[in-house]
Formats: sequence, C-alpha cells, structure tokens
Amino acid sequence: MKIEGLLENKSYILEHMPKGFYTCSKNLGIKDESLDFTVILSSKPANAAAMFTQSTFCGAPIPIGKKNVANGILQCFAINSKNANVATGEEGVKNVIEIVDLIAKELDISPEDILPSSTGVIGHQLPIDKIRKGIQNLKDNLVEGGLEKSAEAIMTTDTHPKLKMCKIGNATLVGIAKGSGMIEPNMATLLSYFVTDADIPSATLQTIFREAINQSFNMVSIDTDTSTSDTVAIMANGLAGKVDFQQFKESLTAMSIDLAKEIARDGEGATKLLEVNVDGASSFEQAKKIGKSIVNSPLVKTAIFGKDPNWGRIAMAIGKCEDEIEVNPEKISIYFGDMLIYNGKPINDDNLIKILNYLENPEIIIRVSLGLGTEEATVWGCDLSYDYVEINGSYTT
Amino acid sequence: MKIEGLLENKSYILEHMPKGFYTCSKNLGIKDESLDFTVILSSKPANAAAMFTQSTFCGAPIPIGKKNVANGILQCFAINSKNANVATGEEGVKNVIEIVDLIAKELDISPEDILPSSTGVIGHQLPIDKIRKGIQNLKDNLVEGGLEKSAEAIMTTDTHPKLKMCKIGNATLVGIAKGSGMIEPNMATLLSYFVTDADIPSATLQTIFREAINQSFNMVSIDTDTSTSDTVAIMANGLAGKVDFQQFKESLTAMSIDLAKEIARDGEGATKLLEVNVDGASSFEQAKKIGKSIVNSPLVKTAIFGKDPNWGRIAMAIGKCEDEIEVNPEKISIYFGDMLIYNGKPINDDNLIKILNYLENPEIIIRVSLGLGTEEATVWGCDLSYDYVEINGSYTT
Repeated sequence: MKIEGLLENKSYILEHMPKGFYTCSKNLGIKDESLDFTVILSSKPANAAAMFTQSTFCGAPIPIGKKNVANGILQCFAINSKNANVATGEEGVKNVIEIVDLIAKELDISPEDILPSSTGVIGHQLPIDKIRKGIQNLKDNLVEGGLEKSAEAIMTTDTHPKLKMCKIGNATLVGIAKGSGMIEPNMATLLSYFVTDADIPSATLQTIFREAINQSFNMVSIDTDTSTSDTVAIMANGLAGKVDFQQFKESLTAMSIDLAKEIARDGEGATKLLEVNVDGASSFEQAKKIGKSIVNSPLVKTAIFGKDPNWGRIAMAIGKCEDEIEVNPEKISIYFGDMLIYNGKPINDDNLIKILNYLENPEIIIRVSLGLGTEEATVWGCDLSYDYVEINGSYTT
Repeated sequence: MKIEGLLENKSYILEHMPKGFYTCSKNLGIKDESLDFTVILSSKPANAAAMFTQSTFCGAPIPIGKKNVANGILQCFAINSKNANVATGEEGVKNVIEIVDLIAKELDISPEDILPSSTGVIGHQLPIDKIRKGIQNLKDNLVEGGLEKSAEAIMTTDTHPKLKMCKIGNATLVGIAKGSGMIEPNMATLLSYFVTDADIPSATLQTIFREAINQSFNMVSIDTDTSTSDTVAIMANGLAGKVDFQQFKESLTAMSIDLAKEIARDGEGATKLLEVNVDGASSFEQAKKIGKSIVNSPLVKTAIFGKDPNWGRIAMAIGKCEDEIEVNPEKISIYFGDMLIYNGKPINDDNLIKILNYLENPEIIIRVSLGLGTEEATVWGCDLSYDYVEINGSYTT
C-alpha cells in the first residue's frame, strides 16, 4: 500500500484519478480572489458515508448534510470556504437549501444527493447573490478529476492543499482535507472528502469509514476548539469494480492518518508535529484521554515550540486527567523519542544534550507508559507558537 | 466590608495584621536571589481548613499536608517557591518529611501541625542542603505580621505579590495568593493562604472555606493546565474572639474572588482580565462548563488579545460543550459588556465601533444567556498573548 501526496508526485496523481468523478473549483469573491467554492460530482449516485461535528452550535449545512447522507447515497459534495454559515439563524438555513437546489438543477441531479459544507468565519450571512451567479455555469466548467483544485478551494488558514491517493486493486482512493485552526474534532474533523471508484456496499462502507476516522481525525487536536462545521465524507461510485474490503479499510485508515498528521503539521502557527503514544493503559479511553491532555496542554505545546526539555509539564498533563482507574506516578515512564526521562523518579540529566538535539526535530514523539494494562492510543497535535497568537488575534478585523 | 490590596494601602495593612501570626521570609538560593522560602506561624495551634489539587501526579508535599490538616488544626504554613518537588520519587517525599521535622524542631511545634507546600519547576530534587541551612536560624528571624513578604516569597512567574485584607468585627482576615501559569484549579488553586485571628470552630471553618473557594478559585482558568501543587489553606487562631459567621463567610468569599481575579489578571502574559457570565442555564454545572469553555478557548483568548470582535468563536465554545440538556442556538443571546451581538441570529453591525472601543478595556465581560433555566455562573480568565508563548517557551532552559 503506497500513499502519494500531491506535492511529492503531481503528475502521477493527475493521471490516476478515480473514474467517474468531475469537479469545478472557482472563486466567487466571498472574501478575496482565491478559490472559495468547489463541487465534486460523481457521474452516478455513489454509496456514501459521512460523520459530522457534535457541536450544538453547528453550521447551517450540517443538518442538511446529515439528512441527505442518511440513505447511504450521495452524488455530489458542494463546499465553500471563507464563510462558515454558522450562527446565521433562519436566513442561513434558507441559503443552504437554495444553494443545494440551484446546484441540483444546474447539474441535473437530486438535491437529496448533495452534501453541502461551509467553512470560514462564523456569524456572517453568505453572499448569496455571488453564490447564485457562480452556480449558473457550473456544468460547462466541470473537469474530470481536478481534485487538487478542490483541495485548494476548501482551504482557509491552511498553508497548502492536502491531497493523498492510493490504489486498491483496480480502484483508486483519493482524500482531500483542510484543517489549521478550531481543530479538536469530536467524531469528525473539519473538512475532509474521499472519493473512490471502488465498488463497496453502503453498509460496509459506513462501518469501514467510521473505524478509519476514529483512528485518525478523531485523534488530532490543534487547539481544543471543536469546530461548528466538522465534516468528513466519502463517495464510492463502483466504476472500478470490487476490491478487497480489508485492503480498502487499511488503505483508508492509513490515508486518514496521513491526512490527520498533515493537518496537525499545518496547524495554525505550528512549527512542529507532536505525536504522543500512550501505552500500558487500563483502557483505550484512558490512553486517549491522557494523550489528548498532553497534546492539548498549552504548557507542553509552548515547551515543544521553545525546544525546552521541561518534561515536568508532561507529568502535570497526565496528572490532571480524571479516570476511574487512577494512574500511579511510581509506575509511569516518560520518553522523548526513545530517551527515557522519568520512570517513577527523574532520570539524571546525562543525556540532556541528546534530548536538546532531539527537540530540534520537526516531528517530536512523546511516549508515556502507564504500567497499568495493555491498551494504547496515539494522538497528534502541534506546538503553540507566536504565529498562532498572531493568526488568531487578527482574523475578522 | 472593605477589602484592601497591598499595593493600594501598604501602611494600613502593615498596622492591621491579625494578632498572633509571625513570619520569616528569606532567600535560600533555590534558583536566584529572590525570596524563595517563607514560614507563617500562629502563636498557638489554630483551627484550620485546606483544599488541594486533584492531580494524580501531585507534588510530594500534598499527601503530607492532607494528613496534617485532617484533624482541623494547623500552626504553620511552610512554603518554598522555584521548585515544586513533583515527580521526584521517594527522595522527594523523604525531603518533605525532613523539612517538616526540622522546622518543627526549630520552632518548637508539632510536625503534624505544619502544612508544607512547594511551587516551581517539576522534576528536580529540592536543594536540601540549602534548605537545611536556611531553617537553622528561622526562630530568631521571625517577625510579627510580615505577610507582605510571604506573598512575595511564594511568587514564581507572578509579576507582583497578591495580598488582601479586611476586618470582620474585631478580627482581621488576610489572604495571600500566587498564580500565573498552570492554572485551572480543580477543587483548589495554585497557592493561597489565609490567616485570621477570628475565633471560628474548625467544622464551621471548613464548611465556610469550601464554599468560598468553590465560588472563587475554582472558577478561574489561565490555561486549562491543572497544577500538581494547588493548595489553599486557612488558619484561624481565635485571638480576636468571636465574629459573625455569615459576615466572615461573605468577607472570605469576596476576598477569595478578589484574589482569584487578581490571579487571572496576572496570568502569564495576560494583557486583559476576561470575565464570563453565563445565565439562563438549566444547572450551575452547565453554566460553569460553558463559562469555562469560553474562557479556556485559545481562539476566544487570542481574539480578546487582538481586540477582535470575532464573537463567532464564543458561539463555537458554547457549541462544543456536551451536556444532558442541550443548548438551542435559537434561544441564546451573546453580549460584549452590555452590547447584544447575537440573539438567535447576528445583530447587525451598527455598533461595531462601540464594540471595538469596548475591547480596548483592560477588563472584558462576555455575557451569555442560554434561555433554558435560571441557573448562572461567573468564571474568570485572561487573554492569550505572545508573552504567554515567550514565558513558557523558555522556562527551564
């Protein structure tokens, strides 16, 4: 199983798009002159699955997407960036419904087969006139493939588009994602879309999809702030025929982890990818909770940014997790990379130079062994830098 | 009830210390040349109460303090800063026991009446030789009062000492506190100590104390990072005779809130105090959870730092709270100060200039009405600035 990233192998990717997917990406002028709108269309209704934010203050498109994917069939993703259509009241809902209807009419598909998404600033109405105008000539501008443009059109504060692809038998799987800020997905991530020409029954697809997402996007946190718009969805149109389900599941999971790490690496202001492995836990939930606590701690994140071997903050982040089975500091080991720094007591500072060198790396791995059981979890995040503060201290104004 | 702060009225405070409390504050050279050690001694065993961190990775002094206060009697607080004595294994525990014994011998009191605390860096053994030496002449250097020096000696990254005092009948209540970073107390705060010469039975004192702390320190968060060393404690030696319990409780609560706000205002790198009032909630827990979610959101905190009226992030922080009774965005109102910005839909931007002016203030109040019930809560925090990143990106090295 080989997963290709857009930047590494552009020509390969352009030649190997899955069959029967068409896109149109354009600038509607929602905020500036960058791409801000994309539709991803399957030539026929596709088996589909999706997961959404659990926010109770969710975006206007979310309930409509949920309703439309409920029967396991979709034919089109329609996404705008630069405006999230959240906290926009009845007018926001009316706008999504109109957009979905206009796209359905223009592309000659059922409105119930469209999954709409919006991402960007909260609390502003969509510029509906501009969107109406942009939909008018969608059909004439569809291109086969073109998902690399879609990956660009869904970006907000991302610094680069995120696209991955791989082959499973005769079929191809492509995933695109955007992330950057307001990222601690709860059952879903900000925005990520997969398309494949593999033939997979809808029920199987939903099971595989849920498991892959829970091991990838749901293990990432940039800043603890669960978005109002998290959506991740897949369409499988079957044009390449049957594939091995196990192989498909492994590929989808690996690609999702790849995209999730890419989102963490490109977190707002991030200079380092932070991976936390927690093992020896009494349950997966305990391992995940402690991993998330470490990866979310502002004190750990600033220490990693500052290349500061202040591992006491890792101990703090472990200690603040409440759990049925309590951790015992005497049984705990903490590592930077493969360097043991604490095992019930501090290890002496002989390898401080080695640790300082390690902290220069762009990817930092923290490992914690709890000594309680056999369960484990891996989570991803990033450091907290001046640039996070700068990017988010001046977003709307 | 008038509460005085040290900086505002130094001479008044020096003249009105509660009776029968002696202190010695000194530099032991734990890190640099600033005060790093203080003992606060009552001339007789005092009724006492204390609350501690719930961290499972707690400091070595915590279990000993818990044991010693269990009978409701204490005679001495002994505190060092610049080293937290956390994650130090058996040697760390042995050191606390030795320190408590040495202080008891030097001051001729029972070791079981001493509450020890340590705050500072995690994962380093205390410089026990320096501490042994510092304890040798403690008794000769005791001064009556002197709590303003104790407030200084317990500081770590605080920018100024925090001391408050008030009269309740003939009695005086003094509180000191330190905060700054690693602050999201869970049932307690970093370090805060109260002394009073009021005569209050131990059981009453414990009840009053718990209620006051739950309304104040437990409602503050600087950075979501619950410390390993949170301790808040009170001694009441009775030398000023009886007081009205209700009045004492009100004073203690008001003083605790005052100190809690002072800690938030002086949070690491903070430029603004952030107060969040949540009302119309279905339970106090729901109001507190939503308040904490807003005050802890890095995106809200950076927006406040940047004076950015990006209230959509408040909506996001409300939405990410899971609760039995779900909020309904249509019923929610959001205010900056007294300016309504959302009530089921965005309010138009007519008062944007007024909001921008408001965001220039050093204290920002966000109000959220949920429209579900009659419960409410107030929490405090601060903004997230470049300086937080700088302070914490280079702490141990």
